[in-house]
Amino acid sequence: MEYLSMLPGPTNVPNRVMRAMLAPIINHRSDDFVELYTDVVDKTQQVFQTKNDIVALSASGTGAVEASVINIVKKGDKIIIPVNGEFSGRLAELIEAQGAHVVKLQTPPGQNATFDQVKEAFDNNKDVKAFYVVHNETSTGTMVNYLDRISDLTSRNDSMYIVDSVSILGGVNLPVDKWNIDVCMTGAQKAIAAPPGISPISVSPKAKKYMIANPPPTMYFNLARYFKYYEESKHTPFTPALPLLYAYREALSIMLEEGLEHVFKRHKVCSDALYSSLSAIGLTPFAKQEDRSISIIALNYLDGLEDKIFRDTLADKFKVLVAGGFGNLKGKVFRVGCMGEVNKYHVMRTVSAISSTLAMMGYKTDAQAGLKTAEEKLKAL
Amino acid sequence: MEYLSMLPGPTNVPNRVMRAMLAPIINHRSDDFVELYTDVVDKTQQVFQTKNDIVALSASGTGAVEASVINIVKKGDKIIIPVNGEFSGRLAELIEAQGAHVVKLQTPPGQNATFDQVKEAFDNNKDVKAFYVVHNETSTGTMVNYLDRISDLTSRNDSMYIVDSVSILGGVNLPVDKWNIDVCMTGAQKAIAAPPGISPISVSPKAKKYMIANPPPTMYFNLARYFKYYEESKHTPFTPALPLLYAYREALSIMLEEGLEHVFKRHKVCSDALYSSLSAIGLTPFAKQEDRSISIIALNYLDGLEDKIFRDTLADKFKVLVAGGFGNLKGKVFRVGCMGEVNKYHVMRTVSAISSTLAMMGYKTDAQAGLKTAEEKLKAL
Repeated sequence: MEYLSMLPGPTNVPNRVMRAMLAPIINHRSDDFVELYTDVVDKTQQVFQTKNDIVALSASGTGAVEASVINIVKKGDKIIIPVNGEFSGRLAELIEAQGAHVVKLQTPPGQNATFDQVKEAFDNNKDVKAFYVVHNETSTGTMVNYLDRISDLTSRNDSMYIVDSVSILGGVNLPVDKWNIDVCMTGAQKAIAAPPGISPISVSPKAKKYMIANPPPTMYFNLARYFKYYEESKHTPFTPALPLLYAYREALSIMLEEGLEHVFKRHKVCSDALYSSLSAIGLTPFAKQEDRSISIIALNYLDGLEDKIFRDTLADKFKVLVAGGFGNLKGKVFRVGCMGEVNKYHVMRTVSAISSTLAMMGYKTDAQAGLKTAEEKLKAL
Repeated sequence: MEYLSMLPGPTNVPNRVMRAMLAPIINHRSDDFVELYTDVVDKTQQVFQTKNDIVALSASGTGAVEASVINIVKKGDKIIIPVNGEFSGRLAELIEAQGAHVVKLQTPPGQNATFDQVKEAFDNNKDVKAFYVVHNETSTGTMVNYLDRISDLTSRNDSMYIVDSVSILGGVNLPVDKWNIDVCMTGAQKAIAAPPGISPISVSPKAKKYMIANPPPTMYFNLARYFKYYEESKHTPFTPALPLLYAYREALSIMLEEGLEHVFKRHKVCSDALYSSLSAIGLTPFAKQEDRSISIIALNYLDGLEDKIFRDTLADKFKVLVAGGFGNLKGKVFRVGCMGEVNKYHVMRTVSAISSTLAMMGYKTDAQAGLKTAEEKLKAL
């Protein structure tokens, strides 16, 4: 019996996507490759809702995030970034390492900076070069809900707008062109439901022009090099992870066949069902209500509930995988991923397995209320 | 009918390795992952013939090469590097981009700097911080044959010794510890015969100490971060390309089952057979005799032979893939890969297909002499 992966990524990968990896290894300097890669670019543009340039990097999400930093941020630049967890903290650190002046909007874990706080930072820093934001903070299960309003600020201050949507793009509406996002990136192993190892990034004409004029002193993440190769030959400058590109393309095809609207709705309904039903059985979400992520549900442990025993029981007895806390939250929360091919069966099985595990560990929980709530919420699908 | 890939990489991948990619996607923060990754590290150490630390990067070979540069080379450092083709040129460029002072030993394409020239550079630059060398120049089909003698020079000058063996490690003897190589890297898609996307790098205690004390202002290729995660938990800092790690491990297992000595011998015999037989049918190798690569055989085009028609005919009629020239050598040479699972059937089929293609294109070639020569040479296997 295989695991049901309810992790914050990598997530379950459909068999159709796994099998796509078995395509023969081709020459990455051939017409066969051009056919594959132009299709990858085209489908990525559809999922990102953009006409911007696309680079599909052979790297983890962090690789794409790093590319967004080293191609944009130079010594002395002023950058605004909200920070409230491990991944936004890492991003701020990486920006600081370039010698930038970072205006950090720090909030407690589980709580986002408000739009007004962001606006105030723009008011006080007219010379800001770029606004970086982690769309969905994987470590705490929070999500920023005002990305549609940011370009009023970035366009007013003539600064760039960069969204790290590694752990949610594809699971929630994020129209890159409509919202004027200059650079946006994600990882294939999250809401897109491909294996890890491909991380697409979109770059607006404005950001592209800047990158070409100011290339970083490195190679693998030098995006100007990718633009040049693509324009000249539709190739990538370095040998790409071919089997993963095939899988990623297949995963994009599945999303587009379902239709983005329905994919977003499915994520939202499953997420609502998980929050409500897990609350009904007696657990409490970690994040502040209005900041809660759709794709990652962080839950506080009940008093005395031991992280490792809980997750091991869930995995061994019920074959359901969830993740522990990250960094400071280790042992205090666990995280349930709600992404990719997530559907009503995944939700019911997860709620049932979690409440059964709690019961086996001696906790009094209301399993019936939990399952009823889930069933009710899932009717919206 | 599937292609026989006689490319300079990616090379043919055995079915056993392809199928390994279908292993379920696991949590990269779990005991299952520890089992996988420690095995990857152990088997990589065996193939690299080293006890040094290993990092298996989720990136192309260029990623590992970049890691070797940004973790070692700082502004003002003096670096010696032989340059005679596209990849050694790129490496020198990347080193220069760090603000280093590069002592470039430039030789014509197809010809290596001699050991005496290298020695002279060490004599004239007592303060050299590191010697970088491309073991096997993929663009021209040359290979450096004196890597066993370099550590006399690096130890005398107290400098570091870094070998980019991306396109040959595993195909020829390269005992990292015996030859005192501080940093060595390769790509999975060459002599190891795995799909592209994993690039292992070995780091000596001396180089490791330096990297930890002087981390680069980036993240994805910051090797100190990988050492820390491995020591603490046997994890990687970023989500690895899991299916490719499974495939890479399987490919290493196949090599170790065959035995490294036999793998090296098989590469050498197949390479000798290709050089001799293709010469017998009337082609001439591009590289100088004593500098010829075992894994990449570059051949001059006969007068008037058009690159694209030749390679397309070979691919369409005989399903054999070879590569064209790279950079300045485009249209002037073609390149036959001899790596990974290469065996006598591959060689015979390739020689037969090349001579048949030449015949179809109206060239008088001695097919019989070519095939007889190949058969004779292959008896050594």
